[in-house]
Amino acid sequence: MIQKLISKIQKTQAPIVVGLDPMLSYVPDHIQQKAFAEYGETLEGAAQAIWQYNKEIVDSVYDLIPAVKPQIAMYEQFGIEGLRAFKKTVDYCKSKDLVVIGDVKRGDIGSTSAAYAAGHLGKVQVGSNVYAGFDEDFVTVNPYLGSDGVKPFIDVCKQEKKGLFILVKTSNPSSGEFQDRLIDGKPLYELVGEQVAKWGADCMGDTYSYVGAVVGATYPEQGKALRKVMPKSFILVPGYGAQGGKGADLVHFFNEDGLGAIVNSSRGIIAAYKQEKYAKFGPENFAQASRAAVEDMAADIRGALENR
Amino acid sequence: MIQKLISKIQKTQAPIVVGLDPMLSYVPDHIQQKAFAEYGETLEGAAQAIWQYNKEIVDSVYDLIPAVKPQIAMYEQFGIEGLRAFKKTVDYCKSKDLVVIGDVKRGDIGSTSAAYAAGHLGKVQVGSNVYAGFDEDFVTVNPYLGSDGVKPFIDVCKQEKKGLFILVKTSNPSSGEFQDRLIDGKPLYELVGEQVAKWGADCMGDTYSYVGAVVGATYPEQGKALRKVMPKSFILVPGYGAQGGKGADLVHFFNEDGLGAIVNSSRGIIAAYKQEKYAKFGPENFAQASRAAVEDMAADIRGALENR
Repeated sequence: MIQKLISKIQKTQAPIVVGLDPMLSYVPDHIQQKAFAEYGETLEGAAQAIWQYNKEIVDSVYDLIPAVKPQIAMYEQFGIEGLRAFKKTVDYCKSKDLVVIGDVKRGDIGSTSAAYAAGHLGKVQVGSNVYAGFDEDFVTVNPYLGSDGVKPFIDVCKQEKKGLFILVKTSNPSSGEFQDRLIDGKPLYELVGEQVAKWGADCMGDTYSYVGAVVGATYPEQGKALRKVMPKSFILVPGYGAQGGKGADLVHFFNEDGLGAIVNSSRGIIAAYKQEKYAKFGPENFAQASRAAVEDMAADIRGALENR
Repeated sequence: MIQKLISKIQKTQAPIVVGLDPMLSYVPDHIQQKAFAEYGETLEGAAQAIWQYNKEIVDSVYDLIPAVKPQIAMYEQFGIEGLRAFKKTVDYCKSKDLVVIGDVKRGDIGSTSAAYAAGHLGKVQVGSNVYAGFDEDFVTVNPYLGSDGVKPFIDVCKQEKKGLFILVKTSNPSSGEFQDRLIDGKPLYELVGEQVAKWGADCMGDTYSYVGAVVGATYPEQGKALRKVMPKSFILVPGYGAQGGKGADLVHFFNEDGLGAIVNSSRGIIAAYKQEKYAKFGPENFAQASRAAVEDMAADIRGALENR
């Protein structure tokens, strides 16, 4: 799957991911009203609204991008019906040949991580049959529990040719509270980064490992340092756009080969029509606004990489 | 909800939680066969089997215990159908007046944690209606992202009178890999414990905070130290029984008032019929075996507390 991600980045010339993190407040009124007319102002209605919203955005941008990153929390908040919309979104994006990164940030003790890994990347056995529960291509994983919480995910990735992005330095303002604390002179995030490199060494595609890392766009200096700590790991970089990151800040997340990072934008793309810059599209044409925002983001990052 | 937990612990004289973490391999054949006859060897069939298994165990033990802790990963591995069984289990346990601790170990950046908190402890707005997605009483939270990943959970707890258990020192063998690393002479888990005490100071019930901590039974020395760091926080203690912890090891997780900790056992209770000690019950009477195992566990911990 890391090879597919790389070949799609090369084909689209866009090392970007669209974060499908729909808040109901992002969904234009005409879509909400249609869903509510059919299903009522219910969890099912909300799920239908976000699914229709996602589908139009995916239809509008899928040829420009290698990957999407649905954030499961935004679906899980609507209970079972929301998770059904998550699954429909994953399946639809895969049918469009997009790489799907499930932003699930799971992580637990060994046997429990094994269940998460089976449910999101692998398969479960039921009697003599075998099923995939959610079947994303990559997932994000929280490393706080250490190696035996991560290894079950790696085992499933080896079987299924899938991949991981381990949280190393997150994009949020208080990420430093624990992650920046010094241990033998090194910040915790760097120790986690060193482990990502170790875990990943055993899981190589042709040039990059399928064990990657999450490092926030909002921390470019740390990104530069971590790039060197994990030279063979892809870095998933959230925090572009609405969270404040810009293309020029992000060049050091990439290797000299122009690869090794993939930059996520969520609200900046999916709710682009709400920005002044794209207001001319109007809520009716929100998906065209998303397409314009993808083109601008790809150009920003391409430009920054050419000028570094 | 912390008051309800305390009053139920006092009433049952059993500071224990039953972990409803069903593996399909724990479910006796007669239950699996009945579910598969009705729904096929499908995800729906698996979900039906674990739901029926849970229900019989809950019916057999609910009067002896204050709380249950369903581990969502064990349901999530079966996709949407599995999560439907999770929700049925949560709802059923609440109808039996049990406190339900959703072992979800979620945690993300602020707006995303807010969505998880709404889905698991709070409510979401859909048009002019308001719904609860999963509606547990407590959830477990991963602290790696720092305060702004935890605060949205606390905010919802204040509104809804619910509670949290934050991962501090987990029960698994490699938990020390990051959690034990020294920062200014103190292990990371102690810094996290200090934060739990700070977060909790603002969230007090009558005598205990509704912001608690997770500390593994497998690390009794660390439990003793953390008890002092977080005197007003309840400690959820996993790892009793199958993972190796015993009552005598656990006394220092409790305060002098005999409160302040609640000990979880999962496999040791729900799959008790598979142990030699309870084999006489047989698979047909697995729920009676679970009841006997609950009684033995409660007696072990009560005895240890009386003899300390």
